[in-house]
Amino acid sequence: MFASSVPIKRGAQQQGSEPLSNSQLPDSANYEAMTVQTLAGRLGSVAAVIERVGTEASDWSVREVGDGNLNLVFIVEGPVGAVVVKQALPYVRLVGESWPLPLTRAFFEYHALTRQAAHDPGRVPEIFHYDAEQALIVMEFLTPHVILRGKLIAGEKVKDLGRVLGEFCARTAFRSSDLCLPTAARKADAALFLANVELCAITEDLVFTDPYFDAELNHHTVGLDPVVATLRGDVAMKAEAQHMLAKFASNGETLAHGDLHTGSVMCTATDTRVIDPEFALYGPMGFDIGMLIANFLMAYFSQPAHRSDAELGGYQDWIMDVTAEVWSSFVMEFRHLWATERTGILYPKSMFEDQGHSSEDALNAKLAMVFEDAIGVCGIEMHRRILSLAHNADFESIEDTSVRAPLEARCLMMGRALILDRAKITSLDTVLAMARTMNQEQVL
Amino acid sequence: MFASSVPIKRGAQQQGSEPLSNSQLPDSANYEAMTVQTLAGRLGSVAAVIERVGTEASDWSVREVGDGNLNLVFIVEGPVGAVVVKQALPYVRLVGESWPLPLTRAFFEYHALTRQAAHDPGRVPEIFHYDAEQALIVMEFLTPHVILRGKLIAGEKVKDLGRVLGEFCARTAFRSSDLCLPTAARKADAALFLANVELCAITEDLVFTDPYFDAELNHHTVGLDPVVATLRGDVAMKAEAQHMLAKFASNGETLAHGDLHTGSVMCTATDTRVIDPEFALYGPMGFDIGMLIANFLMAYFSQPAHRSDAELGGYQDWIMDVTAEVWSSFVMEFRHLWATERTGILYPKSMFEDQGHSSEDALNAKLAMVFEDAIGVCGIEMHRRILSLAHNADFESIEDTSVRAPLEARCLMMGRALILDRAKITSLDTVLAMARTMNQEQVL
Repeated sequence: MFASSVPIKRGAQQQGSEPLSNSQLPDSANYEAMTVQTLAGRLGSVAAVIERVGTEASDWSVREVGDGNLNLVFIVEGPVGAVVVKQALPYVRLVGESWPLPLTRAFFEYHALTRQAAHDPGRVPEIFHYDAEQALIVMEFLTPHVILRGKLIAGEKVKDLGRVLGEFCARTAFRSSDLCLPTAARKADAALFLANVELCAITEDLVFTDPYFDAELNHHTVGLDPVVATLRGDVAMKAEAQHMLAKFASNGETLAHGDLHTGSVMCTATDTRVIDPEFALYGPMGFDIGMLIANFLMAYFSQPAHRSDAELGGYQDWIMDVTAEVWSSFVMEFRHLWATERTGILYPKSMFEDQGHSSEDALNAKLAMVFEDAIGVCGIEMHRRILSLAHNADFESIEDTSVRAPLEARCLMMGRALILDRAKITSLDTVLAMARTMNQEQVL
Repeated sequence: MFASSVPIKRGAQQQGSEPLSNSQLPDSANYEAMTVQTLAGRLGSVAAVIERVGTEASDWSVREVGDGNLNLVFIVEGPVGAVVVKQALPYVRLVGESWPLPLTRAFFEYHALTRQAAHDPGRVPEIFHYDAEQALIVMEFLTPHVILRGKLIAGEKVKDLGRVLGEFCARTAFRSSDLCLPTAARKADAALFLANVELCAITEDLVFTDPYFDAELNHHTVGLDPVVATLRGDVAMKAEAQHMLAKFASNGETLAHGDLHTGSVMCTATDTRVIDPEFALYGPMGFDIGMLIANFLMAYFSQPAHRSDAELGGYQDWIMDVTAEVWSSFVMEFRHLWATERTGILYPKSMFEDQGHSSEDALNAKLAMVFEDAIGVCGIEMHRRILSLAHNADFESIEDTSVRAPLEARCLMMGRALILDRAKITSLDTVLAMARTMNQEQVL
């Protein structure tokens, strides 16, 4: 949710929060933040950790590598191998105790990871140990993986990237929904994740609302003021953004990752993994894939600042191809699951196939609704990453603001078009054509 | 949910149910079904009951007046006054233990009643005592109120009926939503009501699904087969019904009554009260008012069998006027609350009024979405009351099936038009005009 280069200010995100009453949430009365000195003591007797690192904790080397925003992240290495240890802090790390953030986010991350692992095996880090009281997860050390966003800035390609991410979105969306799960199980799980209030409030504020007025935590690049004024003066677009927020906040169709941008994806040249679902919630089916597409489009629009003229066109084409494949793979996998795993209460075969009726039109209508939601979220994500608190490195790493601002302006205007026209846009090809056109426009 | 004249068969509604893990639900290990002999012993020392009935329980007279479907309902009278005692049974009363139904429905009814009382004071029965373990609620004895459906069959009028019901729907919908409540409070409450799985499953099956195939519990009037075949062969309409089910099951916008038909309303000539919210859920804002409008339309279509020619036109006009007022009052009250109580995360004033921008278009768009949902639910309710398990007395009390079937057929065809065209219908006047036209049609 937070990019590494962002100056986080003290927040006011806790409006409306009340003490959680859900007794399933862990008690962290004896919580203790770990250090490179204390971590081996905590984990040295945990069989699942010893097995992967080595029996003698005194032989372990521990590094803290957290990017400094929310959590502690340790790499623990020993004679046998290495693991990653992620521990939540009771506040936003970069800000300090003045911005509290509940430890329960580790609980939701753990439960999201286990569900994602079940729904798309191998795509998220394997979990070796979870300590609920310590808000601490020991998981697979992904190596030599690096954050996808960095690879896109560096101009590197990843094999099968679009297919893998599209399938991940389809499998997690379908298999946690009433299309597939027994509805009692979906409801129990949705009730559990409704307690992830504080992290959802960050999304509700920073993503859907703050970009559209002069919120305290906002900041944007010098030179963007005219475009920002256009957006904040567009009452119709602001209403659309809030219609999307209403769906995000209440339409618990499926377990969404909740923060699926290119900073939550780690890759080698051939392998792609999804990390960090602490913002997980039951929300609209189109949320994750919409946010993901937005981040590819932002990578696309930022490329002129990162590539030589000789490389630019080819690499932008590759990003467009990946983006197209994210959606086409989503659709293909969703269709496959509709045909093979539609065991929930929705669109039952008793009403369609068992009467000799095709459910193909119902499926197409459902996909169209998911697409419309996704494109709306996509447009909003393209705004909040440039106007709200948490920017992304695709643009932030462009030091010359006279280069950065015009590229961001294209993003903002494209986002506006997506939000306003999402009901009329019927294919991702149209979205990509809009991006190619906008990529040539002089908005500022 | 169940009409009194319905032959309930053994059900299969428990698909997907799992043991509830929500520790907030009451434990009923020492539950005991009350009888007219035992009830005074149970309540004779409860101060809130004594105060309203009389200090000596031996002076009380206890009658059991439950209509025989789900629950025990007692009237307890004494020298001071009378109260109603409603106690859940662990099964569907009319069927017996072969169709279990959880006692927790009393818990959800109690919590729905307290919230409705807070949001629209005086509109639901006052609660004097709640015994969670015994699944028992002691409440105000409404007298001389009778069930509204009976009054509509008898041709009786109720003053202010449409206004009161429209306001009730608007106040409960608005004040339990993210338009008004702190979102953390709405989410905690939504999580609580997500445990009302079994009663929601009844709605999901009996209302949204069973009408559209030859489900085990279905029955319909002799002579309707051609119309039923048309509906069950209409693949596009069935898909729309399932799109509505998807919203019902997952879009927890607000606390809905969940079963707001004319059998859940009690009236005198001048007073209107709402009862029986045991099917309560966090669901779409348009659900309650859509179901309510459907039940007025069914009353309208059934009138030719209940009125003399001299009375028919006038009374049908009155029902149309009430139906119009249900919606117009809903809209007026919703607008009032939007202006005066919009304190939630949605459409915040910081994005609109505080910037000198009107939120009027956003409000109109929201109302249009609520209307579209309501009209869709309305059409589905008109189908399930004629095709699924639970019929209603408006039609069931018409003994001559050659009279009943053509009237029901009009209802079915009108419901189909509402489901298919709900996105194009923009006013309730259009709906009422459709009803007036259909009221003249010879469908069978």
